[in-house]
Amino acid sequence: MTQESLTLYYAPGSCAQAVHIALEEANARYEAKRLDFASQQQRSPEYLAINPKGRVPALVTQEGVLTEAPALLAYIAQRYADAKLAPTDAFGFARMQEFNNYLASTVHVNHAHRPRAVRWADEPEAQAAMQRKVPANMTDNFTYIEKQYLNGPWVLGDQYSVCDPYLFTVAGWLKSDGVDIAQFPKVNDHFKRMSEREAVKRALA
Amino acid sequence: MTQESLTLYYAPGSCAQAVHIALEEANARYEAKRLDFASQQQRSPEYLAINPKGRVPALVTQEGVLTEAPALLAYIAQRYADAKLAPTDAFGFARMQEFNNYLASTVHVNHAHRPRAVRWADEPEAQAAMQRKVPANMTDNFTYIEKQYLNGPWVLGDQYSVCDPYLFTVAGWLKSDGVDIAQFPKVNDHFKRMSEREAVKRALA
Ligand SMILES: N[C@@H](CCC(=O)N[C@@H](CS)C(=O)NCC(=O)O)C(=O)O
Ligand SMILES: N[C@@H](CCC(=O)N[C@@H](CS)C(=O)NCC(=O)O)C(=O)O
Repeated sequence: MTQESLTLYYAPGSCAQAVHIALEEANARYEAKRLDFASQQQRSPEYLAINPKGRVPALVTQEGVLTEAPALLAYIAQRYADAKLAPTDAFGFARMQEFNNYLASTVHVNHAHRPRAVRWADEPEAQAAMQRKVPANMTDNFTYIEKQYLNGPWVLGDQYSVCDPYLFTVAGWLKSDGVDIAQFPKVNDHFKRMSEREAVKRALA
Repeated sequence: MTQESLTLYYAPGSCAQAVHIALEEANARYEAKRLDFASQQQRSPEYLAINPKGRVPALVTQEGVLTEAPALLAYIAQRYADAKLAPTDAFGFARMQEFNNYLASTVHVNHAHRPRAVRWADEPEAQAAMQRKVPANMTDNFTYIEKQYLNGPWVLGDQYSVCDPYLFTVAGWLKSDGVDIAQFPKVNDHFKRMSEREAVKRALA
């Protein structure tokens, strides 16, 4: 690679995993810096100077820091165009973005109501009420993905894209959310197919 | 325009307003179809056949239906490239997307906990607890936008982009969320500047 290196800030198993896999698929030159959520490293002054939102992923580029998973996924697809990680026609690209935005603004958010319920209510009983609803919301969302999006083998059909590592990452949260992935045969197959990719193994190592 | 026409499904004041304004800015040939949320038209069998998510915006193109506000905004910017509604370099485009994804997955979601609390908990007390937290979350988010993003006159600086109608739309919810926009002088100026644009007046008419 002649391009300058990137730095990805991530936490294992978080949504940043999708970006991590995409960088591996793109064969990008990058450094991955792990944050420890258990010790709240994402809220340390050092990290807040990089990403004042106190979240991952954050990607440091030579032009500045970028955040928000769907924005990073599209950026990697455009920057490493040779890796063909996104359709290049306006409609195909929009379909890719639609899927990623659905994951970010609906599915990820529904999941977050379990580990991060504190964001949306102060009272412990209200937090518990939100947490009780997580399995039903995640089941609804994955039923929708199974029926409407996943024609296979990949999210967008024959072309592997940055939608795939993102779905793989969010599907990986189902178990801890109390939802059995086996209810969604296409999602389940997709998850297994992803687990076998070399780029995925490298990112998870 | 030689391109075929588009159809936008929207509800007044909803996030679809951002897409509506972007279509006006692009001078696109389109038809706007209004859904009546009061009578739950977004959940009618006719509309669910167009967008099974039962939400707006949905944009019908000659290649298929697209959903998710940030995906539609980028699509309009790419399709009507002459209108220069987004940076074309990978980093600038990613910055635009970062902002729009932040609105969609954080700010819009925080707002939705007031009118749509029922999505995340069944118990009325829990819904009320979520609603009580909306002003604080929206204040945090707009403090962040004021400090980190809005250099003015537009979200991305000198270049007007699809970030602007989206910020205008979400800022329009502050009042009903119990937050005074005047606390955020740059956001407030931006809101006024947007209100004066011809494309905005046409979309709101
Ligand atoms: N909308 C953001 C969400 C980022 C986000 O919430 N990341 C989580 C990990 S999946 C996080 O950093 N949480 C740490 C915290 O809330 O303290 C995106 O899509 O990148
Ligand atoms: N993530 C979607 C959210 C769309 C959405 O929630 N739209 C609202 C209006 S702002 C809606 O249609 N609500 C109708 C309902 O919940 O029944 C996007 O960004 O387009």
